[in-house]
Amino acid sequence: MATILKGVYAPIGTPFVNEEVAYDQLESNVKKYARSKLTGYLAIGSNGECVHLSEKEKLKALEIIVANKADHQKVMAGSSVESTRLTIELCKKVAAIGADFASILTPSYFKGKLNDAAMSKYFLDVADGSPIPVVGYNAPGFTGVTISVGVLKAMAAHENIVGVKDTSPGMIGSYLRATLHLDFDVLSGTANTLFPAMMMGATGGIVSLANAYPDVCVALYEKCIAGDIKGAQDLHLLLGQLNGACSGSYGVAGVKYASEVAGFYGGDPRLPLLPLKESDKQAIRDGIAGVDLSAYR
Amino acid sequence: MATILKGVYAPIGTPFVNEEVAYDQLESNVKKYARSKLTGYLAIGSNGECVHLSEKEKLKALEIIVANKADHQKVMAGSSVESTRLTIELCKKVAAIGADFASILTPSYFKGKLNDAAMSKYFLDVADGSPIPVVGYNAPGFTGVTISVGVLKAMAAHENIVGVKDTSPGMIGSYLRATLHLDFDVLSGTANTLFPAMMMGATGGIVSLANAYPDVCVALYEKCIAGDIKGAQDLHLLLGQLNGACSGSYGVAGVKYASEVAGFYGGDPRLPLLPLKESDKQAIRDGIAGVDLSAYR
Amino acid sequence: MATILKGVYAPIGTPFVNEEVAYDQLESNVKKYARSKLTGYLAIGSNGECVHLSEKEKLKALEIIVANKADHQKVMAGSSVESTRLTIELCKKVAAIGADFASILTPSYFKGKLNDAAMSKYFLDVADGSPIPVVGYNAPGFTGVTISVGVLKAMAAHENIVGVKDTSPGMIGSYLRATLHLDFDVLSGTANTLFPAMMMGATGGIVSLANAYPDVCVALYEKCIAGDIKGAQDLHLLLGQLNGACSGSYGVAGVKYASEVAGFYGGDPRLPLLPLKESDKQAIRDGIAGVDLSAYR
Amino acid sequence: MATILKGVYAPIGTPFVNEEVAYDQLESNVKKYARSKLTGYLAIGSNGECVHLSEKEKLKALEIIVANKADHQKVMAGSSVESTRLTIELCKKVAAIGADFASILTPSYFKGKLNDAAMSKYFLDVADGSPIPVVGYNAPGFTGVTISVGVLKAMAAHENIVGVKDTSPGMIGSYLRATLHLDFDVLSGTANTLFPAMMMGATGGIVSLANAYPDVCVALYEKCIAGDIKGAQDLHLLLGQLNGACSGSYGVAGVKYASEVAGFYGGDPRLPLLPLKESDKQAIRDGIAGVDLSAYR
Repeated sequence: MATILKGVYAPIGTPFVNEEVAYDQLESNVKKYARSKLTGYLAIGSNGECVHLSEKEKLKALEIIVANKADHQKVMAGSSVESTRLTIELCKKVAAIGADFASILTPSYFKGKLNDAAMSKYFLDVADGSPIPVVGYNAPGFTGVTISVGVLKAMAAHENIVGVKDTSPGMIGSYLRATLHLDFDVLSGTANTLFPAMMMGATGGIVSLANAYPDVCVALYEKCIAGDIKGAQDLHLLLGQLNGACSGSYGVAGVKYASEVAGFYGGDPRLPLLPLKESDKQAIRDGIAGVDLSAYR
Repeated sequence: MATILKGVYAPIGTPFVNEEVAYDQLESNVKKYARSKLTGYLAIGSNGECVHLSEKEKLKALEIIVANKADHQKVMAGSSVESTRLTIELCKKVAAIGADFASILTPSYFKGKLNDAAMSKYFLDVADGSPIPVVGYNAPGFTGVTISVGVLKAMAAHENIVGVKDTSPGMIGSYLRATLHLDFDVLSGTANTLFPAMMMGATGGIVSLANAYPDVCVALYEKCIAGDIKGAQDLHLLLGQLNGACSGSYGVAGVKYASEVAGFYGGDPRLPLLPLKESDKQAIRDGIAGVDLSAYR
Repeated sequence: MATILKGVYAPIGTPFVNEEVAYDQLESNVKKYARSKLTGYLAIGSNGECVHLSEKEKLKALEIIVANKADHQKVMAGSSVESTRLTIELCKKVAAIGADFASILTPSYFKGKLNDAAMSKYFLDVADGSPIPVVGYNAPGFTGVTISVGVLKAMAAHENIVGVKDTSPGMIGSYLRATLHLDFDVLSGTANTLFPAMMMGATGGIVSLANAYPDVCVALYEKCIAGDIKGAQDLHLLLGQLNGACSGSYGVAGVKYASEVAGFYGGDPRLPLLPLKESDKQAIRDGIAGVDLSAYR
Repeated sequence: MATILKGVYAPIGTPFVNEEVAYDQLESNVKKYARSKLTGYLAIGSNGECVHLSEKEKLKALEIIVANKADHQKVMAGSSVESTRLTIELCKKVAAIGADFASILTPSYFKGKLNDAAMSKYFLDVADGSPIPVVGYNAPGFTGVTISVGVLKAMAAHENIVGVKDTSPGMIGSYLRATLHLDFDVLSGTANTLFPAMMMGATGGIVSLANAYPDVCVALYEKCIAGDIKGAQDLHLLLGQLNGACSGSYGVAGVKYASEVAGFYGGDPRLPLLPLKESDKQAIRDGIAGVDLSAYR
């Protein structure tokens, strides 16, 4: 089975200055990431606050990421906007800009009527219409909707759907069992589960912690690939502590601040997400300081 | 206390033909509604499938509704798009077209971080920036998020927030207790609760059943206002049966089909919402046929 | 249609002193309630902390309630213990002591497997086996399980199931629509919804606020029966404020303390429910003091 | 750190014949399990349908398990009954019969009031009162309640609480991070997560699949301990398929039937859990037949 999705992707944040997208800071961040070992980027996804951006802003951010990444790095673009028709239109636009994959979140607004038949048809229709391969995105914490194993199997049978990213607390084991011998890749959606997911067959992850610590996340990936289980267990624990200190408690704003501490531009999220309080920032700094990463740098 | 929001609003649907917005059918529907007793319309709201429309489509639909309504009828426009900044921009656009009120749904994507402080600030910021009065919209069935009583009180204290529409199963009693003696109106969001909500102090409703049966819904409103409790109880039961037959079981697609049965253009929802099966349509026709509305026409 | 369940029942609390059931205080409380206008009691129900009691304690508490109530007052006894077999055994025991009705909560532990078929069979089997009429109890806030309208209809068709008590946020309207013309009574499970529920056809309520304010709750019931809608609306608001001050914020412990303030024995709940802090008690006293009930005494 | 809980425990089922506990079949089953490699048993737990049993039945079932197990096997007894006081009483009774550990589920009925303070106090009070070591049990699928990491840390600091069993979809990683360097063991509660949990530091599992396939579950445990990651991955997949075929789709009834297929007495669960239909049994047999376990026997 060919593996198309593998390695570690950073779900890159969208920088703001006074609520305006700071494209220059985005460019500067991407140029730094381009020197890391990251396999690629999820552009204008959840951590990119896609829901806070106009289409114009989304596409301009994507252009900058595509233009400034390393040549070998891949770009997955958040391309879903609830209706099948507009999602396909967006897939075409991001493909034209140079995205390699379209990340497609479940529709969710009319969740009571989005049964397996509707959900399967959505993903298959989008895959039919998208000029680039589709990666499904399961994020019940944001949407209140879960991709069922039945829908996943329908997705896996479509040649233009190459995998799924799972950020749910517990579906990844079922996803892997359902698709392990198919041409379909499963990515972990959080550093907390990257290690156990890879033990069960995941081919990598799209993890927000990579926005702040790209090479340390890649190090965990490489230990798993190399079969260094003891080393992976140890690093899994450290990354879990780091992740708990920023993303776990503070979400997008925490990830941005951790990135800032790590030398990238962070900044505040766009409202209605509130900026962190100074005490929150101190807690994140303390949390980070409590994790000894010296062996991984 | 001045009552600004009162009466029955229809959350008018967006007609599609082959996935394209059928503006001509929308115009034709609005011209029929203009001859009803409806107080007004919720344009490009949930039943208008706002989440399935591009901004351009939304604004053109709104223009048609504003242009074809009766002079005395009011238009509330669904104007929220998750981020504070883009929501305010949309409020300005719908105001320029002639909307009387901006209907503002709770943001919900980053629900884990949208605490009361963030939610209150969102509504107050939007109210500051909107050139037209704001009506909050509580719809946990769609969003997974509920406007707390604390947030509602903050909203009620802002002079540019005039009320709230509640479609939750059980918040309306608390909302009414919290605001009954304030300049703040509470509207029921479904025909199922219009009667008990008005008994407790609601000033009307925005109910999808009015898309198919505008004057029968207004009849219930008028009985409540007139103190005809026995008549209101009877009609409440009939409307509950009707509502169960279409909206209750089939959501937006059911409301559209019931409207079609009642003489308006209905049509299918936009994908990913699936069109009704013929057996579903038969069930709706049977359900409607089982309700004797002859006394209310 | 004969109405079997009507009026106001108090879901009487179980008094504890140092974690031991204080049967003498229970007797004293019941003797006071016997002089009120209450229709009856729910004994050893949720507010009686039935889940915290041994069977021996439950039956002894029931004996005291039966022995000390007024002759015309009815006793409903919480009689469900998850399995069909043991629930029927308990129904027989409470019937032998003199309970008039068995209050049967939904089983819930294996909620994933308790579909409508299992739930219907449970209620029908219990009704077959119980020597006294059964009242269903829908309490998703405690159980995570809801009696569906389909199950309710099956229950209503059994001659030994006479009604249902609903404490959910929003099922009571559907329950009433489904059963209004049947020999089946629907009771509100909270003072917050007693008025709107009765407007829609409920025949009374089992409301924890009646533990502290029996005759004021009965006054609301009587206004509804008498058609004094304006008076009922006003009292509904006052009771909602009272209820929010005690039960709404503090649950069983709050109801007990409100009862104490009103002249009954209250005391702490049994652990793991924590006793109220002094500041909580002050907040309850302040909340109560803010509600002017002088017109209703 | 001493490891007290390790290996594979079977959460042994309670056999019924015509709704009566079939103690003879239980004895026969335990004698077979005694010849397996199981570390021990969870007696009268969820799979033992403890909620369907009277206390007398529970204790008699426990006596039989204690009397017929192999000498070296351990017995954990489900000992929680919602209130602190009665839970401690039950701990004393199971200890007197010979249980080695008391399995203590979260209380859950008054979930709205069982905050971290109440939950911590519950576990600490029970641990103070129990003559045998306590194992916490986190089962939000049954209870709607989750042991927070904060509560878990409080538990881990008590010398009479030796570990936790987690059956939630996603807490086990956090539990392990919070306690890995403490004298506190974390057990997986399902065969689906036994392998990844052990990779992250779990010391074993209490898995219903062991009721049907004790030695195959032990084989997975042993591969993890031996560091045979590839072998563990393969077996993890097979066990996941097996588990999905019985427990995953059919719960307790499915586990019982799979045990029957495997040569134990199964039988129906007690009502309200419905017996399997013949078509369900066929599906389980087909599912089992599709998994090749020949290498593990």
